[in-house]
Amino acid sequence: MTNTQLSLVQIDNYGPWTVTPEPRREMDLQTLQSRLFADLAQFVGSRNGYVFFTRFDNMVAVTNGLDDADHELLQDSIGNRYPVTISLGVGVDPSPIEALESGTAGLQTAGSAQDGDRREVLSGSTLSDAERAGEDVQIAHFDVNDATGKYTDRLNEFDSFIQIEQGYATLMRYLREEDDALSFFVGGDNIISVCPAMTEGDYRDAIRHVSEEAGVELKVGVGTGATAHDAGFAAKHALEVCREDGTDVEFDRPHAELAD
Amino acid sequence: MTNTQLSLVQIDNYGPWTVTPEPRREMDLQTLQSRLFADLAQFVGSRNGYVFFTRFDNMVAVTNGLDDADHELLQDSIGNRYPVTISLGVGVDPSPIEALESGTAGLQTAGSAQDGDRREVLSGSTLSDAERAGEDVQIAHFDVNDATGKYTDRLNEFDSFIQIEQGYATLMRYLREEDDALSFFVGGDNIISVCPAMTEGDYRDAIRHVSEEAGVELKVGVGTGATAHDAGFAAKHALEVCREDGTDVEFDRPHAELAD
Amino acid sequence: MTNTQLSLVQIDNYGPWTVTPEPRREMDLQTLQSRLFADLAQFVGSRNGYVFFTRFDNMVAVTNGLDDADHELLQDSIGNRYPVTISLGVGVDPSPIEALESGTAGLQTAGSAQDGDRREVLSGSTLSDAERAGEDVQIAHFDVNDATGKYTDRLNEFDSFIQIEQGYATLMRYLREEDDALSFFVGGDNIISVCPAMTEGDYRDAIRHVSEEAGVELKVGVGTGATAHDAGFAAKHALEVCREDGTDVEFDRPHAELAD
Amino acid sequence: MTNTQLSLVQIDNYGPWTVTPEPRREMDLQTLQSRLFADLAQFVGSRNGYVFFTRFDNMVAVTNGLDDADHELLQDSIGNRYPVTISLGVGVDPSPIEALESGTAGLQTAGSAQDGDRREVLSGSTLSDAERAGEDVQIAHFDVNDATGKYTDRLNEFDSFIQIEQGYATLMRYLREEDDALSFFVGGDNIISVCPAMTEGDYRDAIRHVSEEAGVELKVGVGTGATAHDAGFAAKHALEVCREDGTDVEFDRPHAELAD
Ligand SMILES: Nc1nc2c(ncn2[C@@H]2O[C@H](COP(=O)(O)OP(=O)(O)OP(=O)(O)O)[C@@H](O)[C@H]2O)c(=O)[nH]1
Ligand SMILES: Nc1nc2c(ncn2[C@@H]2O[C@H](COP(=O)(O)OP(=O)(O)OP(=O)(O)O)[C@@H](O)[C@H]2O)c(=O)[nH]1
Ligand SMILES: Nc1nc2c(ncn2[C@@H]2O[C@H](COP(=O)(O)OP(=O)(O)OP(=O)(O)O)[C@@H](O)[C@H]2O)c(=O)[nH]1
Ligand SMILES: Nc1nc2c(ncn2[C@@H]2O[C@H](COP(=O)(O)OP(=O)(O)OP(=O)(O)O)[C@@H](O)[C@H]2O)c(=O)[nH]1
Ligand SMILES: [Ca+2]
Ligand SMILES: [Ca+2]
Ligand SMILES: [Ca+2]
Ligand SMILES: [Ca+2]
Repeated sequence: MTNTQLSLVQIDNYGPWTVTPEPRREMDLQTLQSRLFADLAQFVGSRNGYVFFTRFDNMVAVTNGLDDADHELLQDSIGNRYPVTISLGVGVDPSPIEALESGTAGLQTAGSAQDGDRREVLSGSTLSDAERAGEDVQIAHFDVNDATGKYTDRLNEFDSFIQIEQGYATLMRYLREEDDALSFFVGGDNIISVCPAMTEGDYRDAIRHVSEEAGVELKVGVGTGATAHDAGFAAKHALEVCREDGTDVEFDRPHAELAD
Repeated sequence: MTNTQLSLVQIDNYGPWTVTPEPRREMDLQTLQSRLFADLAQFVGSRNGYVFFTRFDNMVAVTNGLDDADHELLQDSIGNRYPVTISLGVGVDPSPIEALESGTAGLQTAGSAQDGDRREVLSGSTLSDAERAGEDVQIAHFDVNDATGKYTDRLNEFDSFIQIEQGYATLMRYLREEDDALSFFVGGDNIISVCPAMTEGDYRDAIRHVSEEAGVELKVGVGTGATAHDAGFAAKHALEVCREDGTDVEFDRPHAELAD
Repeated sequence: MTNTQLSLVQIDNYGPWTVTPEPRREMDLQTLQSRLFADLAQFVGSRNGYVFFTRFDNMVAVTNGLDDADHELLQDSIGNRYPVTISLGVGVDPSPIEALESGTAGLQTAGSAQDGDRREVLSGSTLSDAERAGEDVQIAHFDVNDATGKYTDRLNEFDSFIQIEQGYATLMRYLREEDDALSFFVGGDNIISVCPAMTEGDYRDAIRHVSEEAGVELKVGVGTGATAHDAGFAAKHALEVCREDGTDVEFDRPHAELAD
Repeated sequence: MTNTQLSLVQIDNYGPWTVTPEPRREMDLQTLQSRLFADLAQFVGSRNGYVFFTRFDNMVAVTNGLDDADHELLQDSIGNRYPVTISLGVGVDPSPIEALESGTAGLQTAGSAQDGDRREVLSGSTLSDAERAGEDVQIAHFDVNDATGKYTDRLNEFDSFIQIEQGYATLMRYLREEDDALSFFVGGDNIISVCPAMTEGDYRDAIRHVSEEAGVELKVGVGTGATAHDAGFAAKHALEVCREDGTDVEFDRPHAELAD
């Protein structure tokens, strides 16, 4: 069984800031947002977590392995270096969506995202070492088959992007509804999903659904571990097995379905 | 009439690089990608262009105002500071999709995106000063009505994100098919579209379509200018007029429909 | 004759900020300072200027080729992305030290560096295109002979650094007093000097002085151009000639002394 | 007694890289160097270490609290994101200069800094948790008295800088020779020294020496801790006590001299 620790990262009162005293240059906002994300990726990633840019003003991180002090330090360090501050809401649950639900609720209870007085909230609490286990995180790394040959080298970039995007939109909705998993586009033709303990059949169904509804052919590597990086790195290696063997779904280890 | 200059930015042979000699840490890839984008946003943005992250390995820039030497310098500078290099394909056309089509074709002709020998291609050519005009670029800045109250403060972050994402997926497809416009999600609840000369009615139709199909309520500010920044800044100010007056579509100046 | 345009970049009210409400983590300050410098290096550098980190809270830029609008944009963009703002003081003079004197005076007149009310000052004015000439900037690029063999591979890093540092301290003082030139350490074993029109003999004297007083052996490439990059790039190529021919002083072109 | 763990960070074969295939744009090198330093500052700093830019191609880090795995991860992550790689040499000793001597020797034994085949060396070993103690690191944070009033607001920036620089050059040499301490300029008017267990009298002597030789008036806060950040943060607070009480030397706790 998984036990995912998710942290919602929310820029405090960002909307009003972007237009005060008048609208700010869009490319400065884009720079700010993507560098803030890069800093989170380094901080969280070097502690074996994952973070996804999501909407940039709200980002979702898998933080198994990071404790309360890490969260405080992150918040403090961003506050020292950016013109904006961040609030952090932590939640833990076997189901990723429930974990995020509780992480989000922690911030919502403290006030609105656009409440000028609500700054640097840190809500929820992290897993103690004793509560952590080697199967806490399951990561699925999806990838489009031959995206280069089918799209990048043939269509104009926007039409390639539409294909990838519609594949992503379909997968994210399906996995959310069927499996309570959270899926994030990570660039190129890659989607990473934070999943509960799912079976090979579940993944096969998801791939079939995306193929039928959006016409996009996916393969997926699945990994399990104590942290997002452990699980995600195993998933990447499993994905390489898909590539070598021409298979669709590969797990990094004897998995749930076999155990059934 | 618009005359959009678009530059496709493509990381050379990126797919193979990400798994050589073995898969690289995902958070390092995320950092690399988002910082590369941030650097492009600063370079292009400080010359009054816009760049969108799109798939991160392929990015789309509106480069009216940047000449060939600017493109060369950008390519050179990235090559000096990153472990990867970029190719650039420039296209110019009254229709944004045609401009991108030709920019993309320039790179495709030179070889595959995953061709190890194809590096730092610079194809196509930029507008001379004499060819440029004050109406070359039309930018529409879309924004979700009360995203904070309806989504951010009420749903868990993933479900908020799904709403925004489905709104974006619907809009991008619609504007591509109906109007040859290119729409990019820029974070938060904002979508920026690079448009040909469109009318107020065209924008109204798009907003209605997204409302009906995805249930997401948008407003839009539209601006026109010699550069993406000029047009986009005017669009942002027009969007503020939407906010103040409670309207759906605002242009920065007497526009096409009136002229009809 | 040279005509150097120098811009002093000063972080507004930085001292008090670093200890408010209590001292900030030093590594966050270091990160902030070095990234701010990197952003200036990209902005100024991609417009063919040079910027030196100097004290980090006060930086000196050679900005021939950048106009008033460039300076405003830079100030605006930093203000959009950092928790601190910058003031800019521009000065122009055949003598680099006089140019900096006038750039500094512009800010000093506006108030103290630690005056909480003095923000985003932009003083002085830039050269018009008509006033600019191909010999406006002279850059000397100094480099220690065989620093790797004599220091890096033999001494502990601090003792290597002391050698380089004492060489730099000696050179900076000498060139300031004798020639009104401004010298900046740029990392490794390299020093870049912004010079008035100096002769081969002047450079020889400087090298001899540093050798005698600090025991550090230098070579130097000297370049002249309309911008810092043009002059500096020529200086780098001249330095390569020193390396190949085993000479001490090389100019990129028939120079002053010959003309005497 | 202190027990400082120092890590030498050396860019592999950097000199040749900067001029291959021909000299690279100086501002790109400056950007690369300062961003690399910023990334180290975040990685090391968020683990409570300190890093100093020193020569940028060789940087010195105080890494008490970082283990071998942290060093490997850092090396790996830089290799994934930069066009250059780094070698790391770790040394531990009660005397900072001895620790650095041994860290440097580890790399020197593995080959020259400009040996094209010597890449990503990781030499030496880190303190185990059992070996660590609360007094392992002593940090002195020096600051110039009224630098704003005496220099910044009165002299041109280069002459201000010369004052600060000569003060630094004097202090670094003195503390190296008298006390085996390593001193680094960290911007503004600040110098941070990594010290063995020194007494109040030792610091007083250093301040007097700098005043007499360079005419620069310093105050200093001294802190001790298990990590550089713990020690350095205590030093900063002690420095605030100097400011409030008008004193020259303040320790964060009952210190050596009292104990004598
Ligand atoms: N974020 C991320 N993106 C990746 C990774 N690997 C590849 N990509 C992206 O995926 C794009 C396409 O690369 P590939 O998936 O190797 O190419 P392909 O043509 O689809 O070929 P196959 O997947 O082997 O069928 C690259 O340009 C990258 O943007 C990864 O590990 N992480
Ligand atoms: N990229 C970008 N994002 C913006 C901009 N302005 C706002 N946002 C984003 O939009 C989010 C929501 O802010 P608003 O649109 O002001 O808030 P809202 O609740 O939707 O309110 P109304 O739009 O006024 O109805 C913010 O958190 C930002 O992420 C902008 O100019 N550019
Ligand atoms: N900022 C900057 N630093 C450089 C440049 N070229 C070299 N360096 C630095 O100088 C250091 C030493 O490199 P070299 O000068 O090539 O080596 P050397 O051993 O002194 O050899 P010679 O100078 O050829 O005698 C490198 O590690 C870099 O840090 C440059 O163009 N700009
Ligand atoms: N790196 C670093 N620099 C600092 C810190 N505090 C101040 N500075 C720098 O020091 C400069 C001068 O600030 P202060 O030392 O506060 O000003 P001062 O005029 O010397 O006044 P007193 O030191 O109070 O006499 C600032 O611009 C900063 O660059 C710090 O904690 N770390
Ligand atoms: Ca693929
Ligand atoms: Ca909105
Ligand atoms: Ca040298
Ligand atoms: Ca001071």
